[in-house]
Amino acid sequence: SASASVLPSFSPRPRPFRVTNSNRSIKKGIMADGLSDLLNKITDAFHVSCVADLVLDEDGTGVDTEEFFHTLKDSTVLMILEKGEMWTPQQRSLSQDQ
Amino acid sequence: SASASVLPSFSPRPRPFRVTNSNRSIKKGIMADGLSDLLNKITDAFHVSCVADLVLDEDGTGVDTEEFFHTLKDSTVLMILEKGEMWTPQQRSLSQDQ
Repeated sequence: SASASVLPSFSPRPRPFRVTNSNRSIKKGIMADGLSDLLNKITDAFHVSCVADLVLDEDGTGVDTEEFFHTLKDSTVLMILEKGEMWTPQQRSLSQDQ
Repeated sequence: SASASVLPSFSPRPRPFRVTNSNRSIKKGIMADGLSDLLNKITDAFHVSCVADLVLDEDGTGVDTEEFFHTLKDSTVLMILEKGEMWTPQQRSLSQDQ
């Protein structure tokens, strides 16, 4: 809205994301106000010491910058890749259309 | 609305949730004003002594924090996982389009 013009280019308000590991066996809801905040919370929530890459679950797009991160919708599903892990497409059932 | 600007980021007013067990044989409506309140009420309503994990029925996302819990819409369906239980996708009927 017009009254929001004095806000910075992204809002510091935490937003919900869904984060999964590379084999999709664990998925957790995590609130974060930015990419670095999310990466910090991931290391706690998933007990990993180092996240090699954070990608979109849907197509493996790497999320490397705060700027791109802030374009993601609430509840976007992100996948953690640890060193040596790769994104793979999700198996979808034939009847699933959403 | 504009008049809500002084409220905290989440309301303590109890909200309705729908809670199911891991095989979806039982589903109960439970009012809760937060995650810990819901977990307490679940142990009574489902006669379980310990909930290992609470996840979204739709995709198995773990609901670990109050912060994330408060982003969930009223009537969100949550699944209780007891120790050793895992989330599995819901069987969808062919005619189901939502």
